[in-house]
Amino acid sequence: MPSAPAAARLSLNTATVKAQWTLAQAIEGCARHGILGISPWRDKLAEMGVKQAASAIKAHGLEVTGLCRGGFFSAKDWRDDNRRAIEEAHALGARCLVLVVGGLLPGSKDLAAARERVKEGIAAILPEARQAGVPLAIEPLHPMQAADRACINTLEQALDLCDALGDGLGVAVDVYHVWWDPKLEQQIRRAGRNRILAYHICDWLVPTRDTLNDRGMMGDGVIDLPRIRGWMEGAGYDGAHEVEIFSERDWWRRDADEVLAVCKERHRAT
Amino acid sequence: MPSAPAAARLSLNTATVKAQWTLAQAIEGCARHGILGISPWRDKLAEMGVKQAASAIKAHGLEVTGLCRGGFFSAKDWRDDNRRAIEEAHALGARCLVLVVGGLLPGSKDLAAARERVKEGIAAILPEARQAGVPLAIEPLHPMQAADRACINTLEQALDLCDALGDGLGVAVDVYHVWWDPKLEQQIRRAGRNRILAYHICDWLVPTRDTLNDRGMMGDGVIDLPRIRGWMEGAGYDGAHEVEIFSERDWWRRDADEVLAVCKERHRAT
Repeated sequence: MPSAPAAARLSLNTATVKAQWTLAQAIEGCARHGILGISPWRDKLAEMGVKQAASAIKAHGLEVTGLCRGGFFSAKDWRDDNRRAIEEAHALGARCLVLVVGGLLPGSKDLAAARERVKEGIAAILPEARQAGVPLAIEPLHPMQAADRACINTLEQALDLCDALGDGLGVAVDVYHVWWDPKLEQQIRRAGRNRILAYHICDWLVPTRDTLNDRGMMGDGVIDLPRIRGWMEGAGYDGAHEVEIFSERDWWRRDADEVLAVCKERHRAT
Repeated sequence: MPSAPAAARLSLNTATVKAQWTLAQAIEGCARHGILGISPWRDKLAEMGVKQAASAIKAHGLEVTGLCRGGFFSAKDWRDDNRRAIEEAHALGARCLVLVVGGLLPGSKDLAAARERVKEGIAAILPEARQAGVPLAIEPLHPMQAADRACINTLEQALDLCDALGDGLGVAVDVYHVWWDPKLEQQIRRAGRNRILAYHICDWLVPTRDTLNDRGMMGDGVIDLPRIRGWMEGAGYDGAHEVEIFSERDWWRRDADEVLAVCKERHRAT
């Protein structure tokens, strides 16, 4: 097991407190708790306004470890939406734009076609992303979300896309989505320092009562977080550890300051 | 798309009507509906008695396309339980004993250790299975069941185990567990005729409201069943199409004769 992670690596994905806080409150909350990184979602960003958010984040000295999210190539307006997402990521100086790629096309059962669409979609937006200096991070999502949220479901599959499409592209490794994968260690090594653009942490609860919004706080589930962090560090990753917890039944119901305090405490043992 | 499947291929996994029928009723139900295959679960088999079941199945001219289940190498009594399962499969003349291999060991987060235990467990029971003429079918389960039901989660991983352990071992391909896998076609081809011991069908519902008992009837979800059957046939598989639907909210609440009639009807389009 590697030694305890540096507290400075901790970042807050704002989905973790999305039921409680606006983005402005989340920015202040991070500063108040000494959390140095933040990763906003675009709905909250739109509410606050990109300029205001960028200046508040700067004023509090936070690093934007990612912007959630671009992608959803299954949606009608994917082209414009991704263009805007790249501009916003650029305006915030985000380390990457996270791509949740979308699932099956409406009314279709053709998974191969959905995956081909994703490839074409990323190829289409990549030149703009490169020009804006915004790395795109493909996030493989758990296979239980293949139909409705993302048809890229393993790190191997995401890295095959990176190989095919070239520079400016990497992956977001979210333990929730990939912890079960027998090839995880091997594929993290394959990704290496240059292609791992984000690392998201939380935990897998047993039982899991909802396929989307029942994630656990680090330590409350069965994911061997220190081991996976060891693999990440072995691959040269020295970026943020971003806490992203969708939790309708638990953490979204708690006081957000309590949530941040628990994130900090649990991060020490991950 | 391949032509419609022969009705004679249809088999009933008794889990599909487990809330409604005893095994004796399921045997009679299959005969009444002209379904030629049956795959019992061992709890129902124990209720009926192995001898009585074997003779009723024979009397009705049914083929036992599998026995569910052995495995669960994470359990304390795995050794004896698998020995009994092999004996029962032999007594029924089952085409295979399906292995649901079990998840993490109690209190552990060590997935690699759980997987090693599975390998050792299968190696331990394989000689008895060979001697009894009972092929063992490793069933990769959906990654959402990795912690609590099976730590073998892809066909590739199951086939690697087959490669390592040798004859008498194969796989059960259940579309529910593997439909999302980007390597599914490739791994079905790799498995080939000799290693595909069972083919289970149902459908993936969107949304899925429970990670265990919310499977759909063929045609009600998003799985491209004709395409996957085409891959199976391309690999030389000519065995049964076994309907296995865990459905607390729907099919377990219906009249079992209605369920069997719908299975037959939907099977024609899968």
